[in-house]
Amino acid sequence: MSCVAITGKTYVEEPLQCHNISVVKNKDFHLVQVKGTWKRKTGNNCNKNLKGQVSDAKIYESTTEQGTSWTVVSPIIFTYKVIETLGLLDPSNDTLLLGHIRDPQQQEALRSSISSKPLRRFVVMDQTVYNLYGCQLTDYFEARNVLYRILPLPTTEENKSMELVMKIVEEVHKFSLDRRTEPIIAIGGGVCLDIVGLAASLYRRRTPYIRVPTTLLSYVDASVGAKTGVNFANCKNKLGGYIPPVAAFLDRSFIQTVSRRHISNGLAEMLKMALMKHRGLFELLETHGQFLLDSKFQSDSGLQGDNKDAASVSTRVAIETMIEELAPNLWEDDLDRLVDFGHLISPELEMKVLPSLLHGEAVNIDMSYMVYVARERGLMTEEEKLRIIGCMVGLELPVWHQDVTLALVQHSLCERLKHSAGLVRMPLPIGLGHAEIFNDTGDESLYRAFEKWCDELRPQ
Amino acid sequence: MSCVAITGKTYVEEPLQCHNISVVKNKDFHLVQVKGTWKRKTGNNCNKNLKGQVSDAKIYESTTEQGTSWTVVSPIIFTYKVIETLGLLDPSNDTLLLGHIRDPQQQEALRSSISSKPLRRFVVMDQTVYNLYGCQLTDYFEARNVLYRILPLPTTEENKSMELVMKIVEEVHKFSLDRRTEPIIAIGGGVCLDIVGLAASLYRRRTPYIRVPTTLLSYVDASVGAKTGVNFANCKNKLGGYIPPVAAFLDRSFIQTVSRRHISNGLAEMLKMALMKHRGLFELLETHGQFLLDSKFQSDSGLQGDNKDAASVSTRVAIETMIEELAPNLWEDDLDRLVDFGHLISPELEMKVLPSLLHGEAVNIDMSYMVYVARERGLMTEEEKLRIIGCMVGLELPVWHQDVTLALVQHSLCERLKHSAGLVRMPLPIGLGHAEIFNDTGDESLYRAFEKWCDELRPQ
Repeated sequence: MSCVAITGKTYVEEPLQCHNISVVKNKDFHLVQVKGTWKRKTGNNCNKNLKGQVSDAKIYESTTEQGTSWTVVSPIIFTYKVIETLGLLDPSNDTLLLGHIRDPQQQEALRSSISSKPLRRFVVMDQTVYNLYGCQLTDYFEARNVLYRILPLPTTEENKSMELVMKIVEEVHKFSLDRRTEPIIAIGGGVCLDIVGLAASLYRRRTPYIRVPTTLLSYVDASVGAKTGVNFANCKNKLGGYIPPVAAFLDRSFIQTVSRRHISNGLAEMLKMALMKHRGLFELLETHGQFLLDSKFQSDSGLQGDNKDAASVSTRVAIETMIEELAPNLWEDDLDRLVDFGHLISPELEMKVLPSLLHGEAVNIDMSYMVYVARERGLMTEEEKLRIIGCMVGLELPVWHQDVTLALVQHSLCERLKHSAGLVRMPLPIGLGHAEIFNDTGDESLYRAFEKWCDELRPQ
Repeated sequence: MSCVAITGKTYVEEPLQCHNISVVKNKDFHLVQVKGTWKRKTGNNCNKNLKGQVSDAKIYESTTEQGTSWTVVSPIIFTYKVIETLGLLDPSNDTLLLGHIRDPQQQEALRSSISSKPLRRFVVMDQTVYNLYGCQLTDYFEARNVLYRILPLPTTEENKSMELVMKIVEEVHKFSLDRRTEPIIAIGGGVCLDIVGLAASLYRRRTPYIRVPTTLLSYVDASVGAKTGVNFANCKNKLGGYIPPVAAFLDRSFIQTVSRRHISNGLAEMLKMALMKHRGLFELLETHGQFLLDSKFQSDSGLQGDNKDAASVSTRVAIETMIEELAPNLWEDDLDRLVDFGHLISPELEMKVLPSLLHGEAVNIDMSYMVYVARERGLMTEEEKLRIIGCMVGLELPVWHQDVTLALVQHSLCERLKHSAGLVRMPLPIGLGHAEIFNDTGDESLYRAFEKWCDELRPQ
């Protein structure tokens, strides 16, 4: 069934047809703009000799005895930048103020006018991050002559609600933000980036915003995609949208203030991409996981460090593989998504035990079980399975949880079936660094895998 | 300045460049899907011999001494249907249940399974419309074996708020709506369609919805575009989005229960399209305006009536001209918009005197003044000006208002400048049925036009 509002692929093969009534007239229109006015032109009249701008949008008109109907097809292009940088809050670094601007001339013009005409910036910062970096940010803005307002907010999973979105738009409105030239900046973890993204998307129907992730998890996950959202009715991200930021600025040095547990939390999402797409990343995490935890992803060699710099290589591969999967499916029109690995059972688990499990921890427990399912189905060897579980343990991630019961697994898969157009679309790893989507739930293997998973991983 | 998140045109001419630092490496990637996994392929490697699906999305990578940056370009295609129909609530008419489905085979399959497997529909209906048509709708659903929930709401301009959006998503959630197969149906005027559109866009990040306009204004305006929204901080539509409905069903027979004043209200938006784009429509409104008011857009000849059927011809031309302008600019990336005629001064006026002026009335007062501006600039003859004002009076629309002061005009244009990237982008009619966008405010002509407008149109 595809009765959704937006589809990415099929409209060309599916010209408008009418149901059960004799079609009187069908016309396909291109749109051409002449002197500011758009005019419909039928396909045959629309050749390259036409003066004026031709739109990518099309109108299919169909007139029958019952009246006329029009099918409007209009492509919207989303463009955003993801930028690695060091010393984002160092006053000599322009990225925070100008990194989102794509036209280098415009960037240069702004750079030279800053001293005479101050920029204005509205920043939402997670409260904890504000306590750590608020002064640095203030110093940065003062040094760069910026008129700013910083709004610190307690952006926890429990507070991830529409109320906080409304609080943000109120403050943005008071700031008299100019939505053409003054992007809203979000600095914090995934919850902060998700909430601010939604607030910005809603304000004046779309205000550009910038994501600055400060945790490892948001660095490799929330920073890269288009999703925004808040929890609602005790369900994760039930309200939200798919409006990407104008830019995401990635500065690994923030991670040095992240607790060891929260670094493990981020490593879970990196491991997800490794298992789905990149054996090299898996081997790196397997070998250097402890080092990454100990060093908190800090390295002296800078971003361009040689290949031995596990921190820079692992984060870059995680970002690249993530962008690779997200860019072609920004609005999730394709329901078959490798990035959903670890996200079939974990949403229910996470909301059930909130706040005892972090997002990445819940994801890892889900992945751990799914590795047993993959093993049970013969998709990997026993040795590969043990290597993966060993890697998880090395990353100090939980591999089992008492609240994952067979009932929870079955309920999660039912929910999945319901919301994924009748197919379970379960990504499963095949060996190390490859994966495919499976649609047979294979109840028997789920069951056997669950028993074995509990037998082998439940603490004695 | 174009630091917005999304642009429709320029990315191809603007490959990623880095500011003031030596570029080490630039790579452009296509994306190819093989066995469910997306892989980046550099431009040269990506030819038509590649196996697998090639995405329209692209990734531009740039590696410099300071690190790597990626520019993600991802087009999303919006597709929606606008369908004229008669007897939408007649149980023999399938449109309300199946009209949004584009695939005729799927439509047929559903049609034949309705009796055995009931469809489920959630409907939000304006309270006044519910009082008039609630029973008919209930009868329709009962006759078609539909499991339904109708939520009547007082969708007035004063209530157009995020609270009402939250109320809707709560009820939708309780209904356990399946967002793949069960579009939310909105039946009412523009406020109702805008609020429900926003609620549906937010629920599960995007739930398809259907617009059924019941007023003339929403029939020719809100039904056709993508905009959703609610008022906020005493500003019209300050929060919202650009998610089009999956379909809009246009049944002129609803208009028979609309008051004469509200029909005038809708005629204002029709006159807007006439003045901007279609002399024929202007002449029709000029000649048959009173007849349309008297007959409330009802005609015996059906939708396919001959050209003498003013109701069917005028509404169809209004819809066609509106779609023509909206389809190529669905997300309003192009700030030069003819459809903004009548919407420069009217938002401030409307909010200032709320609820004494209807939207179309405020729009008409704005247009009336702008006609004087156009005349003052020599864009039309005195006779043309008088014909337009005469037509407005014939449509029983206000052409002057005491709260439109020069201060309000100037403040409105300042706001416009601020939010339209520094240009006023004022659409002005040229003669009858043509228009252009002007960027010089021409303060002198605004002033003279204002004096003349007051002299000639202020009631004695």
